[in-house]
Amino acid sequence: MRPYELTLAEAADAVAAGDLSPVELTDSVLDRIEAVQPELNAYAEVLAGTARQAAARAAAELAAGRRRGPLHGVPMALKDLIDVAGTPTRAGSRVREHHTAHRDSTVAARLAEAGAVLLGKAHTHEFAYGLTTPQTRNAWAPDRVAGGSSGGSAVAVAAGAATFALGTDTGGSIRVPAALNGVVGLKPTYGLVPVDGVVPLSWSLDHVGPLTRTSRDAGLVLAALTGRPVPDRRPDFTSLRVGVPGNHYFDRVDPAVEEAVRAAIDRLRDLGARLVDVEIPLAEHVKATQWGLMVPEASAVHEETLRSSPELYGADVHPLLEAGRLVPAGDYLRAQRARALMRQEWARLFDGADAVDVVAAPTVPLTAVPRDTETVTWPDGSTETVADAYVRLCAPANITGLPALSLPVGLDGEGLPVGMQLIGRPFDEATLLGVGHVLEQSGPRAGTDRPGLAPEPAAARLVAQ
Amino acid sequence: MRPYELTLAEAADAVAAGDLSPVELTDSVLDRIEAVQPELNAYAEVLAGTARQAAARAAAELAAGRRRGPLHGVPMALKDLIDVAGTPTRAGSRVREHHTAHRDSTVAARLAEAGAVLLGKAHTHEFAYGLTTPQTRNAWAPDRVAGGSSGGSAVAVAAGAATFALGTDTGGSIRVPAALNGVVGLKPTYGLVPVDGVVPLSWSLDHVGPLTRTSRDAGLVLAALTGRPVPDRRPDFTSLRVGVPGNHYFDRVDPAVEEAVRAAIDRLRDLGARLVDVEIPLAEHVKATQWGLMVPEASAVHEETLRSSPELYGADVHPLLEAGRLVPAGDYLRAQRARALMRQEWARLFDGADAVDVVAAPTVPLTAVPRDTETVTWPDGSTETVADAYVRLCAPANITGLPALSLPVGLDGEGLPVGMQLIGRPFDEATLLGVGHVLEQSGPRAGTDRPGLAPEPAAARLVAQ
Repeated sequence: MRPYELTLAEAADAVAAGDLSPVELTDSVLDRIEAVQPELNAYAEVLAGTARQAAARAAAELAAGRRRGPLHGVPMALKDLIDVAGTPTRAGSRVREHHTAHRDSTVAARLAEAGAVLLGKAHTHEFAYGLTTPQTRNAWAPDRVAGGSSGGSAVAVAAGAATFALGTDTGGSIRVPAALNGVVGLKPTYGLVPVDGVVPLSWSLDHVGPLTRTSRDAGLVLAALTGRPVPDRRPDFTSLRVGVPGNHYFDRVDPAVEEAVRAAIDRLRDLGARLVDVEIPLAEHVKATQWGLMVPEASAVHEETLRSSPELYGADVHPLLEAGRLVPAGDYLRAQRARALMRQEWARLFDGADAVDVVAAPTVPLTAVPRDTETVTWPDGSTETVADAYVRLCAPANITGLPALSLPVGLDGEGLPVGMQLIGRPFDEATLLGVGHVLEQSGPRAGTDRPGLAPEPAAARLVAQ
Repeated sequence: MRPYELTLAEAADAVAAGDLSPVELTDSVLDRIEAVQPELNAYAEVLAGTARQAAARAAAELAAGRRRGPLHGVPMALKDLIDVAGTPTRAGSRVREHHTAHRDSTVAARLAEAGAVLLGKAHTHEFAYGLTTPQTRNAWAPDRVAGGSSGGSAVAVAAGAATFALGTDTGGSIRVPAALNGVVGLKPTYGLVPVDGVVPLSWSLDHVGPLTRTSRDAGLVLAALTGRPVPDRRPDFTSLRVGVPGNHYFDRVDPAVEEAVRAAIDRLRDLGARLVDVEIPLAEHVKATQWGLMVPEASAVHEETLRSSPELYGADVHPLLEAGRLVPAGDYLRAQRARALMRQEWARLFDGADAVDVVAAPTVPLTAVPRDTETVTWPDGSTETVADAYVRLCAPANITGLPALSLPVGLDGEGLPVGMQLIGRPFDEATLLGVGHVLEQSGPRAGTDRPGLAPEPAAARLVAQ
């Protein structure tokens, strides 16, 4: 097996055992980047030289008997919204063409301190304000969207071009590309992972989190990001209560997606979990609340540049930013009040006699669409934009701040990965990751025999046709 | 001494010792209300019958050996924004003419549980959206404003027409009338005292808190409101660091107010405290931030009624509410961002090597103005509205959420009370109340020999002329 194919946990074990050097691992992943970057374009910038230096330093530390932990010498990608001192943070935008970060974001500093090796900056949809990341191609089918806005991060991980990556998630931007590329994405509880030094999209909805090939890997990264260990435990399935939504999450969902997700839920039941019907509160207000918070907040962030250099924004993002300047404060405040109610009502799902421990649902209602698709038409005749469809099932966890994990649970009829979402109690990432791990162990693997690794793009494209 | 003249602590001791019955105390205060209400009009509604019943119940409980605590049998006023089941909450507005509350606010329920006797609902400036409470007259000088918006509560306490009262404070509405009527007002830390069942003005700035005649009394009420004891301790003055602002708080302040406040600060130094010069952060943004948060939030609260019955609002409040509907979300978000910065910078004053324990400052830049005054002209030629003047020094504690105490520290040249403000660390009300108590013990009494009690209004009016 080639080192770039290893999961983070496997790589960490091999490094700890002295069977794999950080230099060998990093070189393998850099070679892989070279092989797939022309077709997939996951990276905005590859920092091969500094990565090799960092790997050499990590190897020297090991030789001197110092190992910083499981991330020591493991190569990673950071979404190009995350500041690294001395490196540009271009945020996928011409607005930031001449930018250079003068200090590390807290997350970059913590990962460096944990020994991780930075491979480069992964592409983002411009300013994280979109769900496709058009610069990058889907790791399973290059004619399909990568998903976004952390498309570069997800594709890098799925293609073996990074052992793990960080993304950001304001309305699904970690979970959507994770689902569309068959990898694991964790949006942690709001506030758990510091966002300073990360270009904001919408500060009351923004989260930073890991994209990995397994749930266990996500726990290792989260521990480094928070400085606190994440208990690596198998939940007691005999007492686990899994909420299965009767509304919202299975409405207007592709049958193949629903089938794969329901099969995974059935596996949870077979493992001993109790399935509980739950009704998602205030579901009819999700869209208005998500957009009502995000649109004016995003415009406020860009206020000055919108005035000074509007022509530098892309054709999809610019009108959204302009529109946000026209939102009355009353509409924003109505969204804030809806959010407060939603948070309160969701808290009840996880509390009291009928409480569940996790809610299980699809991450997105459909797999990766062809790159030129703008709208989706559902069997009931309704139409929505691709952005609305991809945000719809992710937004509740952004609005409420609850932690949410996306993990692959199979393929649709076109051979494209399907993502399942687990939503949990505030700060109870451990249960999500534990349930995700058991599902990964017990279920059918997606695509290759290497967890989270996409088939070679060319082969995948054939499957998809 | 007549029972209505007793402070809360004195009344509680007398009740505990069996020297005073709740019935006798309540009757004395009801008689006092009858005497002063025609001139001062502190109450929107006096509930004499239910007060006498509650007092009788409190007496019966005592006779049966049950004493609920220091508030047992003590009569109080609630600002007419605070729901009491079965009683109208008219909020000083024709909009609420036919209102009846169906359940107690949490604060009303907690005070009832603590044994307090409700005397009635005290006048508020319409929907708490103003600083004068025009229905009510100043307890020291009936030709002067009561201050607001908790004007009725402050005047009732100052006139002996309530042993204590609750008010609300969004931009100074507890502290301003406390200062103008020579009583103590505490705006607790944001979030410490629940606001459910209290008519909102601006939910990110609203606070509920006590108006009393002494700092010790305020601690007794706060303990009942929070369900947690407030340590009744004298701070160690040898280690106490008192911040004295070099900007903002002594700018455009009446010389007599400055003199009284600086004299009180000197007394703190004489008691052993270390005076530390502090610079108030972002002071130039206080006004825009306070109004930028309050105006759109208030309009959002009134959205439906503004549409259905705009004619029911008063002539000062209606245009403010209409104006708030026109605020763009971007302006509101700018105020929220300024608030976040301000909170962070204020936190530094109370943290680190140069940290202070309290900031000492005037509560308001001038004492009670004549009732028909609309603007104030300062010696530098600048002019501001009375509302702006009264809000200016109070707003930082609303914006930051820091606890702030106003206590009387003397009289100006016209014989009107001067208020001093102590601002502290989040949830450190105990230090503010302890410092306030020592100041009350060590300093000149304002007006009468009964702490916090105004001279008879007629006499006071003579003093003022």
